[in-house]
Amino acid sequence: MADIARVMADAGRNIISMREFVNVDENRFFIRLEIEGNSSAEELRQAILAALPADTEIVVNPSPQKRIAVLVTKEYHCLGDILLRNYFGALQASVRCVIGNHEILRPITEKFDIPFHFISHENKTKRSFEEDIQNTLQGYEFDYIVLAKFMRILSPEFISHFQKNIINIHHSFLPAFIGAHPYRQAHERGVKMIGATAHFVTNDLDDGPIISQQIIPVNHAHTVKDMVNLGKEIEKSVLAKALQLVFEDRVMVYDNKTVIFEN
Amino acid sequence: MADIARVMADAGRNIISMREFVNVDENRFFIRLEIEGNSSAEELRQAILAALPADTEIVVNPSPQKRIAVLVTKEYHCLGDILLRNYFGALQASVRCVIGNHEILRPITEKFDIPFHFISHENKTKRSFEEDIQNTLQGYEFDYIVLAKFMRILSPEFISHFQKNIINIHHSFLPAFIGAHPYRQAHERGVKMIGATAHFVTNDLDDGPIISQQIIPVNHAHTVKDMVNLGKEIEKSVLAKALQLVFEDRVMVYDNKTVIFEN
Amino acid sequence: MADIARVMADAGRNIISMREFVNVDENRFFIRLEIEGNSSAEELRQAILAALPADTEIVVNPSPQKRIAVLVTKEYHCLGDILLRNYFGALQASVRCVIGNHEILRPITEKFDIPFHFISHENKTKRSFEEDIQNTLQGYEFDYIVLAKFMRILSPEFISHFQKNIINIHHSFLPAFIGAHPYRQAHERGVKMIGATAHFVTNDLDDGPIISQQIIPVNHAHTVKDMVNLGKEIEKSVLAKALQLVFEDRVMVYDNKTVIFEN
Amino acid sequence: MADIARVMADAGRNIISMREFVNVDENRFFIRLEIEGNSSAEELRQAILAALPADTEIVVNPSPQKRIAVLVTKEYHCLGDILLRNYFGALQASVRCVIGNHEILRPITEKFDIPFHFISHENKTKRSFEEDIQNTLQGYEFDYIVLAKFMRILSPEFISHFQKNIINIHHSFLPAFIGAHPYRQAHERGVKMIGATAHFVTNDLDDGPIISQQIIPVNHAHTVKDMVNLGKEIEKSVLAKALQLVFEDRVMVYDNKTVIFEN
Repeated sequence: MADIARVMADAGRNIISMREFVNVDENRFFIRLEIEGNSSAEELRQAILAALPADTEIVVNPSPQKRIAVLVTKEYHCLGDILLRNYFGALQASVRCVIGNHEILRPITEKFDIPFHFISHENKTKRSFEEDIQNTLQGYEFDYIVLAKFMRILSPEFISHFQKNIINIHHSFLPAFIGAHPYRQAHERGVKMIGATAHFVTNDLDDGPIISQQIIPVNHAHTVKDMVNLGKEIEKSVLAKALQLVFEDRVMVYDNKTVIFEN
Repeated sequence: MADIARVMADAGRNIISMREFVNVDENRFFIRLEIEGNSSAEELRQAILAALPADTEIVVNPSPQKRIAVLVTKEYHCLGDILLRNYFGALQASVRCVIGNHEILRPITEKFDIPFHFISHENKTKRSFEEDIQNTLQGYEFDYIVLAKFMRILSPEFISHFQKNIINIHHSFLPAFIGAHPYRQAHERGVKMIGATAHFVTNDLDDGPIISQQIIPVNHAHTVKDMVNLGKEIEKSVLAKALQLVFEDRVMVYDNKTVIFEN
Repeated sequence: MADIARVMADAGRNIISMREFVNVDENRFFIRLEIEGNSSAEELRQAILAALPADTEIVVNPSPQKRIAVLVTKEYHCLGDILLRNYFGALQASVRCVIGNHEILRPITEKFDIPFHFISHENKTKRSFEEDIQNTLQGYEFDYIVLAKFMRILSPEFISHFQKNIINIHHSFLPAFIGAHPYRQAHERGVKMIGATAHFVTNDLDDGPIISQQIIPVNHAHTVKDMVNLGKEIEKSVLAKALQLVFEDRVMVYDNKTVIFEN
Repeated sequence: MADIARVMADAGRNIISMREFVNVDENRFFIRLEIEGNSSAEELRQAILAALPADTEIVVNPSPQKRIAVLVTKEYHCLGDILLRNYFGALQASVRCVIGNHEILRPITEKFDIPFHFISHENKTKRSFEEDIQNTLQGYEFDYIVLAKFMRILSPEFISHFQKNIINIHHSFLPAFIGAHPYRQAHERGVKMIGATAHFVTNDLDDGPIISQQIIPVNHAHTVKDMVNLGKEIEKSVLAKALQLVFEDRVMVYDNKTVIFEN
């Protein structure tokens, strides 16, 4: 920490905010700095690297405005929320395109002048379906793929093309109710709270690093359909929060976890 | 509902409060009545049975003051909370005895003039351990067994003796992290909330009807030990709430779920 | 209750769900019934009235689809959420028009083919401003006025025209921080949670019957601006919940309070 | 920050954890360090002072085990929780004595071998009552006074003797419902959540720096008595959390606010 502070001082950089976390057990050190000053990003990176151990990983000057591609199926609530925030400049990212495996969400997307691509999963192999998506995505520059209630499971191969850059919203309090129909599972189990989890996507289904989670109370009188509707409220809310944390460069991933410097 | 209202009216009973729940899918009807009046409990039961379908299950005039036996291991927080409430008449139950498989919690128990029985699980079979517990329990009259952080798994045979009357606190948000070391599992998984679940105990481990659940946020900086300590706060809180609901006769069990008429 | 059940039975109506609340202190009884059957609404009303005390107030067969007029100023988050739900048929109401005292929210409103009326408050008296709003409203049929972050205080005279039918979202945990700039007040006071309150509007500022409230944690590092942004998340969420409760006819108002039968 | 890191490095101190907060508007900088190493506390203080601006306030080597005096009236829940934690070494403070203006809580206190002093407020002036308390307190060494549901208002003069060292639990979500009978006020107002606030005591009633707040949902069916009982659960919980934060030296006070470095 002293070393980093010294590097910043030497580089004429002023530290605006700083958060750090030491994982003592694993001997790992995480730090997030907001700085201001005139030296170039590359000079700064070199100066930090010179001062720190060889295995240091640095992200300097992340782009303040991320670009995203959004994948959806039929449900509007997460996409709608993203489109609204995008339209009013409150997303800290710009939506470049929306890809849906149904046509249902085309009109709302196009209302906001965002290109919508319909790519059906029907009558083709998963491989072919994913290739179609990849081909479409190649027409855009983007930093993250957001799965905004995209209800198809992506193959490890697809995921490997976008390592650490796919964010999903899963409609349960992970690791409870992995996989399909979590609300039906929750209803069957008789839980008293349902949850939603925003996480990075890795090869294992619903097993990636968790970014944010939220719950909402339910009771015996809630049907599966009631739970689905209640769940939508926290799904869109927790996804929005996760996106904000990621887009503000507050999230670091290691092992299968996240370190998040919230404020 | 009209039938029940009519029975109450005919019996000269005044309905103080009434809550009902219809499970349309399963064609089951649940109702909880608080009534006042003079007809005897048995007369009332007969009158209700005469008016309702043959498979109706009725609990009339439940004892307002339940009696409980508490099983513990080493952790004080749930037992301490129960003993305090019991001492100040705020538990709606009376603690008849505490059984521990360690001696640690004897002093706090005896401070409150409650008998404490030490029954070690060491150097004996599970069957023998459970027989010792059962023999000790036979010396008491009680309505419920409360597992207040009792860290031994009870056999289906033991459980079958106390059907629907064993209440456990599990230190996770069930069904996530079933079994041993849920906080270690939670830490490993990198969740952003940890939970606690109070439930009735059935033959399957941690799989009985859920009464109450609660969560508390955690972050990357919380160690397993931090989670254990944070978890204690919600464990004792959610167990206390579950006990209150059960002791006020607000909880009905069916299939593997609970119907809870809160207020 | 028996009387009502009898009336329903006599009228050939089947009770689907029933919730009641007895305010013992004030000797008032509230009941909400969902029923199905063939007798006409007027017949039913007469039958109920005949069976119940003279001062009974009954609402029979409320329109399942409410119509609303929305008043806004500059902030998009509540209006956007309402427009999205409306567009996807998830609002249980239809938005008839939006009136803004700024032009900012015209484009988003018109995207969804809802008429937007700009009525400036500038260079006119409050009376004249409110008359302009009332004249515009007269062109529409609606059941409720929703103040979706409408930042002008309405006069008792205006309010009296729409008794019990104006719903407001206030950006604090009422009754804390009544009036203007609640987030600035909250920041000044150093609270550890901020809140939002949806309520019916009465003559006294921010003093009407509360429908729903929600909070979100804050800490010393949150600036007023951070609080404003965090607050938006709960403002739109709590307003959405309040609207749903009202539009599903789950909210009864008496004295200055609400009785809400949630599920 | 660089300066502090340099001082620590020069003093041969290793920084284990560090949290900082910059209040930009007021040009104030707060930092909390956990360090290990061999230089003496006084040497360290001098080195820091030499490196930092003249108006720096430093607390070095706070005692890891605080001592407290507890003032109570009749309610057991906060005191009981404190006594339990104290007994099991989980309070990070040691309770030196309990003073009550009623005798009710003597037995529970003495069960835990803590001296209890009964000081009635009856038949004497407030000044005389407070002098009696002060005289009793003089027999003990303590760092903090905890008002664990002490229902008498203390005079500014009394408070001035223990500046910044009196912690109170107020049974409302401050600044809502200041003063007496907050639950009655909450019931009257028809709020949908009730709260509890732990805060330092200053001259103005219920107006000191807030340490922690918590809420719990209520509805129309909760009577004032129900609210009192529900409130107890969060009162003891929020007080426990505040005490932990203070006793772990995580709370700094400035103006009328707290800066809290939680983990």
